[in-house]
Amino acid sequence: MSDSPRPLRADARRNRVRVLEVAKAVLARDGTAASMREIARQAEVGLATVYRQFPTKEALFEAIVTEQTREIAGQAQSLADDENPGEAFFAFFTYAVTSSTGQKMLVDALADAGVDINAGELGQANRAMLDGAEILLVRAQQAGAVRKDMGMRELGALVSAACLAAERQHWDEDLRTRVLGIFFDGLSPRT
Amino acid sequence: MSDSPRPLRADARRNRVRVLEVAKAVLARDGTAASMREIARQAEVGLATVYRQFPTKEALFEAIVTEQTREIAGQAQSLADDENPGEAFFAFFTYAVTSSTGQKMLVDALADAGVDINAGELGQANRAMLDGAEILLVRAQQAGAVRKDMGMRELGALVSAACLAAERQHWDEDLRTRVLGIFFDGLSPRT
Repeated sequence: MSDSPRPLRADARRNRVRVLEVAKAVLARDGTAASMREIARQAEVGLATVYRQFPTKEALFEAIVTEQTREIAGQAQSLADDENPGEAFFAFFTYAVTSSTGQKMLVDALADAGVDINAGELGQANRAMLDGAEILLVRAQQAGAVRKDMGMRELGALVSAACLAAERQHWDEDLRTRVLGIFFDGLSPRT
Repeated sequence: MSDSPRPLRADARRNRVRVLEVAKAVLARDGTAASMREIARQAEVGLATVYRQFPTKEALFEAIVTEQTREIAGQAQSLADDENPGEAFFAFFTYAVTSSTGQKMLVDALADAGVDINAGELGQANRAMLDGAEILLVRAQQAGAVRKDMGMRELGALVSAACLAAERQHWDEDLRTRVLGIFFDGLSPRT
């Protein structure tokens, strides 16, 4: 009996990871109206298992957005010591846009449900992401790879603009690459 | 009796213009949930007058978007012979973003209501706008003011990106100018 809870916890963790993965795919395909039942079916777990992990759809959305934001923050951190600060910054920008596309509808749903996205674990993840992004921006500017007359406000505006349009217009990878190419040329210092 | 309908028609036309103007302001402030009653109140006309011009909210939204699209098309046309094709293109881009911001929610509401925005008068206005934009783009490219490796797809993506983010994040004029400045540097030919 002493070690019986362990496998259960590992099971629960596996289920959680699995449900999150499947939920991301189902939501990307069907939008925020996708049902918990459909997510459970595709994850091949019982509906009760989904509700045990995520008592409400908002809890599920929040978990997805938090995980995604943490991944972007982690990416920023891993690029912070890169020997080419310019490349690191543009790689991070591309990663942030690529992985955030499709998340805006979840963030909107959270806002509609009155969830404060600057509070709790999501708020913490957001701050970590912004801190990481700022370090990459400043390093790239110091290295002369990014124009000095832009700050976090412009960066946030550009990343959001790309994410929103990519999500709405279903940009393919080619169009995203081309649009980001125009952004990046615009971010380079004028010679 | 022969000339009695004329003043009536002029009245109806004035009411229509007035309701459209007021509706734009009310919708920008309150979103698409704004009531016809509130629009009538602020336009200082009877509710029946609003419904006579616009039998449904979708009809009102469609009229606003059509008018706006026509204005953008007209702006493109008036810039088509400009002696500085580069300046003309960037002026048009700025005008399109500035005047389209706030329209996306109406376009979405129309799409949700099953309105085909490529049909009828709106479709016609859309095509006129795109034709006008393409002329400005090609002229600017021929004059060496805009990079040659971009087309209407990239232009549409950039304008939409700016509009969507400006609408969502409530950009002020300063931020819009700065972001468009980055876009425009990115659109200039690489030297």
